[in-house]
Amino acid sequence: MKKAEVAIIMGSDSDLEVMADAAEFLEKLQIPYELDILSTHRSPKETADFAQKAKSIGVKVIIAAAGGAAALPGSIASLTTLPVIGVPIKSKSLEGLDSLLSMVQMPPGVPVATVGINGAQNAAILAAQILALSNPGISQKLEEYKKNMVKSVWEKSQKLKTEGYKKYQNQKK
Amino acid sequence: MKKAEVAIIMGSDSDLEVMADAAEFLEKLQIPYELDILSTHRSPKETADFAQKAKSIGVKVIIAAAGGAAALPGSIASLTTLPVIGVPIKSKSLEGLDSLLSMVQMPPGVPVATVGINGAQNAAILAAQILALSNPGISQKLEEYKKNMVKSVWEKSQKLKTEGYKKYQNQKK
Amino acid sequence: MKKAEVAIIMGSDSDLEVMADAAEFLEKLQIPYELDILSTHRSPKETADFAQKAKSIGVKVIIAAAGGAAALPGSIASLTTLPVIGVPIKSKSLEGLDSLLSMVQMPPGVPVATVGINGAQNAAILAAQILALSNPGISQKLEEYKKNMVKSVWEKSQKLKTEGYKKYQNQKK
Amino acid sequence: MKKAEVAIIMGSDSDLEVMADAAEFLEKLQIPYELDILSTHRSPKETADFAQKAKSIGVKVIIAAAGGAAALPGSIASLTTLPVIGVPIKSKSLEGLDSLLSMVQMPPGVPVATVGINGAQNAAILAAQILALSNPGISQKLEEYKKNMVKSVWEKSQKLKTEGYKKYQNQKK
Amino acid sequence: MKKAEVAIIMGSDSDLEVMADAAEFLEKLQIPYELDILSTHRSPKETADFAQKAKSIGVKVIIAAAGGAAALPGSIASLTTLPVIGVPIKSKSLEGLDSLLSMVQMPPGVPVATVGINGAQNAAILAAQILALSNPGISQKLEEYKKNMVKSVWEKSQKLKTEGYKKYQNQKK
Amino acid sequence: MKKAEVAIIMGSDSDLEVMADAAEFLEKLQIPYELDILSTHRSPKETADFAQKAKSIGVKVIIAAAGGAAALPGSIASLTTLPVIGVPIKSKSLEGLDSLLSMVQMPPGVPVATVGINGAQNAAILAAQILALSNPGISQKLEEYKKNMVKSVWEKSQKLKTEGYKKYQNQKK
Amino acid sequence: MKKAEVAIIMGSDSDLEVMADAAEFLEKLQIPYELDILSTHRSPKETADFAQKAKSIGVKVIIAAAGGAAALPGSIASLTTLPVIGVPIKSKSLEGLDSLLSMVQMPPGVPVATVGINGAQNAAILAAQILALSNPGISQKLEEYKKNMVKSVWEKSQKLKTEGYKKYQNQKK
Amino acid sequence: MKKAEVAIIMGSDSDLEVMADAAEFLEKLQIPYELDILSTHRSPKETADFAQKAKSIGVKVIIAAAGGAAALPGSIASLTTLPVIGVPIKSKSLEGLDSLLSMVQMPPGVPVATVGINGAQNAAILAAQILALSNPGISQKLEEYKKNMVKSVWEKSQKLKTEGYKKYQNQKK
Repeated sequence: MKKAEVAIIMGSDSDLEVMADAAEFLEKLQIPYELDILSTHRSPKETADFAQKAKSIGVKVIIAAAGGAAALPGSIASLTTLPVIGVPIKSKSLEGLDSLLSMVQMPPGVPVATVGINGAQNAAILAAQILALSNPGISQKLEEYKKNMVKSVWEKSQKLKTEGYKKYQNQKK
Repeated sequence: MKKAEVAIIMGSDSDLEVMADAAEFLEKLQIPYELDILSTHRSPKETADFAQKAKSIGVKVIIAAAGGAAALPGSIASLTTLPVIGVPIKSKSLEGLDSLLSMVQMPPGVPVATVGINGAQNAAILAAQILALSNPGISQKLEEYKKNMVKSVWEKSQKLKTEGYKKYQNQKK
Repeated sequence: MKKAEVAIIMGSDSDLEVMADAAEFLEKLQIPYELDILSTHRSPKETADFAQKAKSIGVKVIIAAAGGAAALPGSIASLTTLPVIGVPIKSKSLEGLDSLLSMVQMPPGVPVATVGINGAQNAAILAAQILALSNPGISQKLEEYKKNMVKSVWEKSQKLKTEGYKKYQNQKK
Repeated sequence: MKKAEVAIIMGSDSDLEVMADAAEFLEKLQIPYELDILSTHRSPKETADFAQKAKSIGVKVIIAAAGGAAALPGSIASLTTLPVIGVPIKSKSLEGLDSLLSMVQMPPGVPVATVGINGAQNAAILAAQILALSNPGISQKLEEYKKNMVKSVWEKSQKLKTEGYKKYQNQKK
Repeated sequence: MKKAEVAIIMGSDSDLEVMADAAEFLEKLQIPYELDILSTHRSPKETADFAQKAKSIGVKVIIAAAGGAAALPGSIASLTTLPVIGVPIKSKSLEGLDSLLSMVQMPPGVPVATVGINGAQNAAILAAQILALSNPGISQKLEEYKKNMVKSVWEKSQKLKTEGYKKYQNQKK
Repeated sequence: MKKAEVAIIMGSDSDLEVMADAAEFLEKLQIPYELDILSTHRSPKETADFAQKAKSIGVKVIIAAAGGAAALPGSIASLTTLPVIGVPIKSKSLEGLDSLLSMVQMPPGVPVATVGINGAQNAAILAAQILALSNPGISQKLEEYKKNMVKSVWEKSQKLKTEGYKKYQNQKK
Repeated sequence: MKKAEVAIIMGSDSDLEVMADAAEFLEKLQIPYELDILSTHRSPKETADFAQKAKSIGVKVIIAAAGGAAALPGSIASLTTLPVIGVPIKSKSLEGLDSLLSMVQMPPGVPVATVGINGAQNAAILAAQILALSNPGISQKLEEYKKNMVKSVWEKSQKLKTEGYKKYQNQKK
Repeated sequence: MKKAEVAIIMGSDSDLEVMADAAEFLEKLQIPYELDILSTHRSPKETADFAQKAKSIGVKVIIAAAGGAAALPGSIASLTTLPVIGVPIKSKSLEGLDSLLSMVQMPPGVPVATVGINGAQNAAILAAQILALSNPGISQKLEEYKKNMVKSVWEKSQKLKTEGYKKYQNQKK
C-alpha cells in the first residue's frame, strides 16, 4: 500500500456520508489517501498529534470536514504548514452558515482553503490540483476530468434539445 | 498576590479594548484574575498548555474572547472540565455573527457558555455568579450590584420624568 | 429524594423532546434536578416566583430553554444571581437564529450563558462543570466522561481504518 | 395635566435619541403620554409593576423600545391585555436584526405589534390609529397628517421636475 | 349577521391554512369578521378599493397576511388610517425572513403592526386587544383567555412533575 | 420552426424542474424560445460562445438560471448587450440566499435583471414584457394574462366568501 | 423636448443621491427620461395613477428605487405590463437586505427586474439594453460602452504592471 | 526577473488596498508573482485568455479577489486545473457576505479555495504552502514565519502580564 498523500479527516462519523465523495474521487484518480475521525473538541490531543506528524509521514494535503463550530481545519492548520482544505458540513439548524463562517474566517497567519458547504468532491479535486503541480500524471487526469465534465454538460444539452424538456424530465423521474 | 480564580484569555491584543471591561468588573468585586493573550490558531501549544494546567494552578473559571473563526473558547474547553465562558468579539466584516456562531455552536460534549457580542462585562458577571456558589462574599456583592442596577435605572427614570426628555437629552450631549 | 441542584425550565412542553437530553445527562451523573414548564410570556408571575425563590430552595444552576422570542433565560436571570444557562430551541421558521439572538444578546449586567441551538446536553454538562467546582465527585465523573468521549472517537477512528468507509457506512444504515 | 393614554417605555436612556420622535408625534397630535425608562432585565419588578397597573391608571396603548435581546415589549405584554407596540432599536453589532427577531417572534397568546427598526414615529402613529377608533379628533388629525404626507411628496416631486436633479441635490447639501 | 369589525385579508389562498387560526380565535371571542383574498400585486385595484372603503363599512382593524415580497399590509396601510396588522407568511425559500422584512420595515408615516412569522393567532389577539379598548366584553374575554393560558401552562407543569418526563413524552407520541 | 427570440439557459439539468415553468409560459404566449444547458463553471467556452453569438442568431432576451455560486447570468451578460434575466435557484444549503446574492450584486456596467428565487415564470413574463415593447400581439396577451390574474383572485375571493374558510380548505385537501 | 422613454421613480428624495447615476447614464446615451418622486406608502394614488398611465404617455421602461419595505417597483408592476426595473436602496439598519428581499421576491405573475443594492447605473444600462432591441442607435452606444469598459480595465492593468502596486496606490490617495 | 509562480488577480483597482498584503507577503518570502486587474464581468475575454494561458507561462497558483457577485475566481477556475484561491472583498452593502457566498459555493467539479473576507495575507500564505510542497526553501520560510507568529503572541502575552492591561492599552493609543 502506498503512503497516503492526502489525509481526509472528519470531526464525526456523521460526516462520512458527505465525505465519501472525497474518498471516491481520490480513488478514481489513484491518489493514495487515508481517512480518519478526529475532533478538535472531543479528541484534541489526537488531533494535535496528527497535525504535528502529518508532514513527516508523507501527507501533503489535509482535507478536514466539520459542522457547527467547525474548528477542525483551523486547529490542524495551526500546527502544520501543509495546505489544509476545509469542508463545512451542513448543520442541523443554520443550514451550514455556522460551519462555513467558523471555517473560512481565519485570522491572518493561518489560512484554511474553504470549499462550499458539503463540498467534499471539490475538496478532493482541489487536493488533486495541488498535488498535480509536481505530478504530471495527476495533472493529466485532471485535464481529462475537466474535458469529461464539458462533454457531460454537452451531452445533456444535446439530449434536451433533441427530446424537448417534457420527455427529458419524464425520463429523470 | 492572591492566586487567580478567573483567567481572562483573548486571542489577540486588539481584543483588549473590549475585554478590559471584564478585568475591571472582577477588580471591583475583588476577585483575583489573570489576563493573557493566547491564540488557538497562532499559538496553539501555549493555548493547549494553559488549558491543561489551568485547573491545577487554581483557576476555576476561564473567560475566552475571540473574533472571526473564534475557536479559542472551544479549544480550551476541549482540554479542561472547568467552565469556559466565550466572548464573541465584533468582527471587521460580518458584525460579529461569525464570532458568535463559531463559539456557540459547539458539538455535544464540550459546552462553551457564550455571552453576547462584545459582552465582556457579562462574562465577568457570569464568572462571579459561578464563584459565588461557594463564596458568600461574592454572592453578597452580586446582590448589591443587582440592587444598584435597579437603583440606577430608577434614578434615570425619575430624572426623565422630572426634567422631560428634551432637557434630559441636552444634558447627555 | 435529594433537593434539586439544577432546575431545567422550558417555555413549552414542545421543548421537552430536546430537553430530555439534559435530564438524562444529569441522571447519569447523579445530580439531583427538577424539570418544569414556565413561560415568561404565558405564565410570567409563576416564572418570576420561581426565579426569586430558586436560590432559597437550594437550586444552584438554572437551565432555561425557549424558542422564537426566547425571553425565558433572560427574564429568570433578571431576578436571581444564580448562573442561568440558556438553550435556544430550533424554531419553526428561522432555523433557531431568532431563539439564539434573543437569548445571547443580553444587556450589560444580566448574563445568560448560552449554548448552541438545541444544545440541551451541553447545557447539562456546563451545569455539572459549575457544580464540580465545589463537588469532587462530579468533577471526577466529568473527567471520566471526557475520557470516554476521547475513547469513543478513537474507537470509531479505528473501526473506520479497519473496515474502510464503505463497510462502515453500510453498517450505519 | 391630562392622564397619559400612551406610555412610551424604553429599556435604556440610550434609546431616548430614537424614541424622542414618538413623543414629538404624540405631542403634535395632543395625545397625552408618559415617558419612562424600565428594563425587563435590569429592573424587572418595576417593569412588571408598571405592566400590571398600566390599564388601571388609564393607559390605553404601550409603546416599548429595546435593543439586543429586546424582551421589554414581550414581558410587558405578558402582564396586560392592552395592545403593546414594540420598537426594535438598532443594536451595536447586528444592525438591529437581533432586536427585531427578539421582539416580533412572540409565542401564540402574547402578541407584540412590532414596527420597523428604530421606527419610533411609526409606533406613535400606530398608537394614534388605535386611539382614533374611539376618538374622532385623533382620527381627523391622522387623516390630515396623511394628506400632508401626500402633499409633501407631491411638492418634492414638483420641485424635482422644475429644478432638475442637479439643482435639487445641490440645495440639499 | 353583524357587520365585520375585523377584516382578515390574505394575498393568496395558500395562506388560508395559516390564517384560519385568526378566524377561529375571533369566532371564539364572538368578534364579527370577514375573510378575503386580495393581492397588492395580482389584484391591486380591488385591494386599493377595499383599503379605501374599509373604514366606512365599519371595519376597525385590518389583518393582512402575505409571503415573499409581502407588500399587502403596507399597501393597505397607505390608504387607510385604520390600524393594520401584518402577518408574514413563511416563504418557500428564505424561511419567512423576506416576508418579515418586507412587512415590518415601513417608512415613517405608514406603520404596519407586524406579528411573528405565521403568527395568525397573535394577529387576532392583537385585533381583539385593540377592540377591547372600547368594548368591555372583549376585554373581559381577553382577561379570561390570559388566565386560561396561565392555567394551561400550570397544568402541564403539574403533569410533568407528577409523571416525569419519560411518561409525559410517551403520552404525547 | 420560428427562430427563438428567448433563450432559456440553465446551469444544470437539475434546474429543469423549476425552469419548465418559464418554457410553459412562453409556449402559452406563442413566443419562440430555445432551452439549453450551459455552465459558466463546467462548460465555460460553450457558454461564452453562446453569449457572443446569441444576438446574431436572433435571440432578443436571455433567461439564465443557476444555483449556489450562480455566475451564469453574469458571465453571459459580460459578453452581450442583450438583456439577461437571472433566476436564482433554491440551493441545497442556504435556501437560495447564495444564488440570489451571486446573481444580483453585479458590478457597475453589467446588469443582471434578477427575479425571485425559483422565479422561472416571472422570468418568462419579464422576457415577454420586453418583447411586447415592439410586438403588439404579445402586449395584448400580457394584458389578458393580467386580467385573468385579477379574475382568478376575484373568483377565489368569491368562493371563500360564499363557502366559508372551512369548506374552502377542505376542498383544497 | 422628446417624450421620456424611461421613467426613473424613487420613493423618497433621499434616494436621489444614488439614483442620479441612472439619470446621468441615460443622458450620456441621449435616452429621454423623466425623474419623479412617488411613494407606494406615502402617495399611493399618485403612484397608481402614474403606473396606469405610463404606457399611454410613451414610457417604455420604468426604473423604481426604494429602501426598507421597498414596495414601489412591485406596486407599479402590478398596474402595468411595461418592464419594471427595481433598485434596492441601502437601508439604515440592515445593509439593504430588507430592500433587496422586498423587491425581488415577487409572487408569480408580477416580475420586478431587480438589480444590485444601490445599482442605479446598472438599472439604466438594463433599461438601455431593453430599448436597444428596437433602437440600433442605442444598441451601438451600448456596444461602445462595453468596449470602453474593457479598455478602461486594460489601461488600469497596464498601469499597474508598469508602475507596480506601491506607486499605483500612492497615486490613488 | 524570475517568472511569476503566483498570479494575484483582482476584479477592480479598488481591491488593491486589500490585496497589497498578498503581494507584500510573497515578496517577503521571495516568491516571484505578478499582479493584474482582470474582471469576469467587465473584461471577460482577457480574463479567459489569462486563465487559459496561466499554466503554460509558469504560473502555479492563482489568487483572485473580487467583491459583490464575486465571479472572478470561479470563472478562472473553470478554465484551468491550477489551484485557484479566492479572496472575497468586503462589499459596500452586505458586509462581504455576498462576496463570500458567490465565491465559495461552487458546483461540484470546479473548486475555489476560499479564504476569509479581505483575507489577502492568508491567500498568499496558502499559495506559499502549496508551492512549499516542492520547494524546501519556501517550506523552511513558512516554518520560520509560524515560529515568529508564536513568538510575537508570546511577547505580547509577556508584555501584558508585566505591564498590566491599563499601561498596555495606553501605549497602543
